[in-house]
Amino acid sequence: MEAVKPYKKGSDYSYSLGAFPTYELIAGKKERVRGVYIHSGYTDKESIQKICRENNISVLSDDKLFSKVSDKENCYVLGVFDKYTDTLKEDTSHIVLVNPSNMGNLGTILRTALGLGIKDIALITPCADIFNPKVIRASMGGLFKLRVQLFDSFEEYRAKYKKQEVFTFMLNGENTLEIQNCPRSELFSLVFGNEATGLDDSYLKAGTSVCIPQSPEVDSLNITIAVGIGAFLFTHAGK
Amino acid sequence: MEAVKPYKKGSDYSYSLGAFPTYELIAGKKERVRGVYIHSGYTDKESIQKICRENNISVLSDDKLFSKVSDKENCYVLGVFDKYTDTLKEDTSHIVLVNPSNMGNLGTILRTALGLGIKDIALITPCADIFNPKVIRASMGGLFKLRVQLFDSFEEYRAKYKKQEVFTFMLNGENTLEIQNCPRSELFSLVFGNEATGLDDSYLKAGTSVCIPQSPEVDSLNITIAVGIGAFLFTHAGK
Repeated sequence: MEAVKPYKKGSDYSYSLGAFPTYELIAGKKERVRGVYIHSGYTDKESIQKICRENNISVLSDDKLFSKVSDKENCYVLGVFDKYTDTLKEDTSHIVLVNPSNMGNLGTILRTALGLGIKDIALITPCADIFNPKVIRASMGGLFKLRVQLFDSFEEYRAKYKKQEVFTFMLNGENTLEIQNCPRSELFSLVFGNEATGLDDSYLKAGTSVCIPQSPEVDSLNITIAVGIGAFLFTHAGK
Repeated sequence: MEAVKPYKKGSDYSYSLGAFPTYELIAGKKERVRGVYIHSGYTDKESIQKICRENNISVLSDDKLFSKVSDKENCYVLGVFDKYTDTLKEDTSHIVLVNPSNMGNLGTILRTALGLGIKDIALITPCADIFNPKVIRASMGGLFKLRVQLFDSFEEYRAKYKKQEVFTFMLNGENTLEIQNCPRSELFSLVFGNEATGLDDSYLKAGTSVCIPQSPEVDSLNITIAVGIGAFLFTHAGK
């Protein structure tokens, strides 16, 4: 295996930092794993070694590597994997993120989607790099249990996935989401805009536009919170 | 005014970094503002100067100060204020955070609470420092429009605020929160635990324990998302 270097967007590999995200990497994408580094100071080596052995994954050691690639001090396990591409399922509900730019937010949204049972995520580029270790860490490794597909435009996404009913989340959305009136849809795409700019007005006509009621005292809810509330309502409205 | 130094927890002043949080500082706590620094490169000086003039707030300039106290490059306005203490209202609903430790999470929760109309926040110490500029920035200045009070223990909080019906959010909560069964309460305290540890089992008996349904594929939802979903359900259930 070639030497692991600090992460670069153009590289064909990335890594999971920390034991938990590395377990998720192995659970979700074991065929992509090049190897797992374990720090000599790690106190629970046996568990991770066992999982690696069971999955035919090389266990490596190089303590100096950890400080080179991680800015967190409590990182003792590191999984190296080949980048990959996913394809969304056609018959599931999706979350669509248009130009998400903040890596922490993107990771938190991935973890939230997985937690609420939505496993197909479309990203409209340009957007934050899903394989940046900061995104993976913020997702707590949730990335590896999702299907995440990139598209050049919303139109490209929509041309490929036509079955879903589209709901666009906008501050000027025409339908105020309340618990009592949340649309019941079997198959939906929930579309959210960039942190700073939201969705532009063309999305008012891309489907049913909705807004989460919020106090005029804030500019808007944080994008991660909007996704959490929106996804919860849509995944539970029919129950 | 004494020279402004990089933030320290023990200092009796702090600052808002950026124009938006500084506007919120002036809107919410103008009597606490020592002064506002405007960078010579700022392109919208007139608006902030006008607000400062109307509120009798000194406008200052010291371009070098910005790089000393902010690690973000796009910070052109900085408000300096005296720290203060708040007292919660007795007849409003509250959010109670037990030992929140991450500054970004705490700020995001403050912004979310304000956005969902809950303006009284109890923090059980030890907890992240609410006046750290990172918390203020993550709250987008929402801190200044809330009442935030610190308590040494949940019992101390409860001894002072007895009217609220208590709901504790726990992964092992006895009542699964669904849209259809969310308790309708006029006056409530929603209690959330630390990011890593949650609430300990003593909180099962501190009130009605609830859990947000989530996939077994995640460890838990992020605390900020749990607060967003929980606060949305409780503030909208009765409507």
